[in-house]
Amino acid sequence: MALNKVLEFATSNRERYLEELKEFLSIPSISTLSQHKPDIQRAAEWLVNQLTSLSMKNVEIMPTGGHPVVYGEWLDAPGNPVVLIYGHYDVQPVDPLNEWISPPFNPTVRGDNIYARGAHDMKGQLHGVVKALEAWQKSSTLPVNVKVLFEGEEEIGSKHLESFMEKNKDKLKCDLVLNADSSILKPDLPSLTYGLRGMAYFEIWVHGPSNDLHSGIFGGTIQNPAQVLCELIAGMHDVDGRVTLPGFYDRVRVLPDEERKELARLPMSDEDWLGMTGAPKLYGERGYTSVERRGARPTMEVNGLLSGFTGEGSKTVLPAKAMAKISMRLVPYQDPRAVEEQLREYLRQHAPTTVRWEVKTLTTTSPALVDRDTQAMRAAAKALEATFGVKPVFQLSGGSVPIVSTLQTVLGVDLVSMGFGLPDDNIHGPNEKQYLPNYYRGIQSYIRFFDLISKLQ
Amino acid sequence: MALNKVLEFATSNRERYLEELKEFLSIPSISTLSQHKPDIQRAAEWLVNQLTSLSMKNVEIMPTGGHPVVYGEWLDAPGNPVVLIYGHYDVQPVDPLNEWISPPFNPTVRGDNIYARGAHDMKGQLHGVVKALEAWQKSSTLPVNVKVLFEGEEEIGSKHLESFMEKNKDKLKCDLVLNADSSILKPDLPSLTYGLRGMAYFEIWVHGPSNDLHSGIFGGTIQNPAQVLCELIAGMHDVDGRVTLPGFYDRVRVLPDEERKELARLPMSDEDWLGMTGAPKLYGERGYTSVERRGARPTMEVNGLLSGFTGEGSKTVLPAKAMAKISMRLVPYQDPRAVEEQLREYLRQHAPTTVRWEVKTLTTTSPALVDRDTQAMRAAAKALEATFGVKPVFQLSGGSVPIVSTLQTVLGVDLVSMGFGLPDDNIHGPNEKQYLPNYYRGIQSYIRFFDLISKLQ
Repeated sequence: MALNKVLEFATSNRERYLEELKEFLSIPSISTLSQHKPDIQRAAEWLVNQLTSLSMKNVEIMPTGGHPVVYGEWLDAPGNPVVLIYGHYDVQPVDPLNEWISPPFNPTVRGDNIYARGAHDMKGQLHGVVKALEAWQKSSTLPVNVKVLFEGEEEIGSKHLESFMEKNKDKLKCDLVLNADSSILKPDLPSLTYGLRGMAYFEIWVHGPSNDLHSGIFGGTIQNPAQVLCELIAGMHDVDGRVTLPGFYDRVRVLPDEERKELARLPMSDEDWLGMTGAPKLYGERGYTSVERRGARPTMEVNGLLSGFTGEGSKTVLPAKAMAKISMRLVPYQDPRAVEEQLREYLRQHAPTTVRWEVKTLTTTSPALVDRDTQAMRAAAKALEATFGVKPVFQLSGGSVPIVSTLQTVLGVDLVSMGFGLPDDNIHGPNEKQYLPNYYRGIQSYIRFFDLISKLQ
Repeated sequence: MALNKVLEFATSNRERYLEELKEFLSIPSISTLSQHKPDIQRAAEWLVNQLTSLSMKNVEIMPTGGHPVVYGEWLDAPGNPVVLIYGHYDVQPVDPLNEWISPPFNPTVRGDNIYARGAHDMKGQLHGVVKALEAWQKSSTLPVNVKVLFEGEEEIGSKHLESFMEKNKDKLKCDLVLNADSSILKPDLPSLTYGLRGMAYFEIWVHGPSNDLHSGIFGGTIQNPAQVLCELIAGMHDVDGRVTLPGFYDRVRVLPDEERKELARLPMSDEDWLGMTGAPKLYGERGYTSVERRGARPTMEVNGLLSGFTGEGSKTVLPAKAMAKISMRLVPYQDPRAVEEQLREYLRQHAPTTVRWEVKTLTTTSPALVDRDTQAMRAAAKALEATFGVKPVFQLSGGSVPIVSTLQTVLGVDLVSMGFGLPDDNIHGPNEKQYLPNYYRGIQSYIRFFDLISKLQ
């Protein structure tokens, strides 16, 4: 009875939700760029206002070594489970800005989608779960105890969250964690993520001459750092698409046959996948399917390259230095710190003595694997089935949510990742979007999840 | 007698020359950047004023398909040779701007050097030759006939000069060409350049997905254009430092033993050379000395790299595209157009079908070789010896002056390259400089050269 009233409240408030979401999305809370620090603060304050209006207690902006955490709690369901809800209110940078059809912080609805930086990742999901809490509080009473932990550093590797959690372990004590930073496979196919890749993100710098040199006078006698960087990066993959860093695969989890069979049944064809990208052809490590490649196998990507003259026209320079941003997506049981050492060892073995090199480690995130057979997972599955009308599938995510493995380790409880973004939402790229029908279905799924959790024994 | 008076005039006017040079250097006439078009015009007008004040005739700014040519003539020495003086008043871009100690267009003297973009390449040389003409005209009368052709597109490959010269062949008719865009090997060692490398400059674009993608969701299933670009560039050199484009060496001039012996006697040690660069070590094609590598062998350099996210911090993007600027320095008898086709053939053979690629040709310049045994060359050698007190050496320049081979071909006369920059003047890089004692010795050498040319039979 209560549940129906709550669901109806959510349905009748859709227009207001959308306006509010636009407001939230218009705050450029880019965590990696220091000039956006005031926007990070504004986004945190926006959330504080939301939580306070839901009668949550002890709502506060808690400092960390970096961007702050927004915390709040509602503990008036004695005897019922305590759910800790995790999300992040920071977003990725927006360049290349000229490729956005509408400005990234001017949220715009086109068709069934809302376009803005963060629409999917993850202000859309975060707002959805807050609206589910609101629907309960405004039309009934939350049947579970809730603690929320919204961080502002996910997109830069959740640098300070682990120490924050260690320090506030008692405050964060809970029975299970709901991570709303997740996605589903197709618009009408609910999905639960049971694995997330970890990450190790580096800058590699190759230094040659002390200044940019004239490429005619010195070309052929001084080695070109951009050439060396290209050679080093080229050598990091073999012809089978495997990463060649020494020891890179040593600790990679071998996918059980049973799990491979299950993943093979996921209703996402290679054609569907390719169609989302606009690339001419799929690619990947020999011996694995696309589904396995993106969730169960580690990868290495070049995220950025910069050297020499990149402006209009022709400048004949032999650059003094060259830089690449590269990142590895890691799977259980790889250790990002070990990968850093593997990268350094690779460079020691392969960089020529005609240059100097350095490695800067920007972020490290451990991979995570979640037990699929828990009460919380079953409750999530039921909530999704009731909302979408079909049983959810279990998937491995190619992405990384830095804190998932830490949430598991520090709090020692079950975790459910439930979010509603889609693979083709252009997250981290231009024209990021959220599919609005699923934004609304997400709210309904969260409402049902809280109901089902309250009925657990 | 006249000569001494002229030399004295030049000596007593040094301070004014320096002030004027500063004025000329402060005009940011960067030819490759369209926003500097008005500065190109200003630099041309500045030269027109100079030439007019020397009683030169028919001084004008002549349009080409691109930046204009400054032309002027003085033909009042009937019966004596006509010398066509070539130079360029455009300069290279200035980035990385933050590495300049003093601003590039705020010419600053530190010690014996003047620092500014163009100080060496080649406003310094150009101004020097104009001041030599002035010294003759103001204290006596020029003993030779002179035509000047100063272009504004050398740094972008002299795109329109060949057609300009073809169209104005009669106007440019002369007995010999003095190319002032040249350099010497060491401060006290006058040098004459008898070979210049050609150039072929390209942008290579590799395109993958239609948008930047999330490197976690798509990484491992869609090939990364930056990775592909690095692999393609890495493959363009073999372990011996040779360029692997198919057919690249087919037409390369084999260096005669006699010439190798002569080059080996040039008083420039590998230690001297390395010391000018700040690089950890020299590098180059196996089987050749540094002197040969930089003048007599073709090379390929990466001039710029750009892909994905290059700002502060970590953005986990799989870039939609990646770009490299690369250029080949060519030696006789390579053809830059053939090199373009070799590059395309290489990419056809090696680019994977997971990406699309394109090549944009930015500039092409033929290599040039000059006969060392001409009357003009002997006059230049004598002028240098009289000024420096030592006999000049003959050198092959690693750089390219696009128009030298065209000057030879179109006008069909002997050519002398005589300039006074130094190899460590940081041309095309930050903190470009000109060594002032040689700027003054240059003026004296040009004064003597005109005298000696007038005495040729």
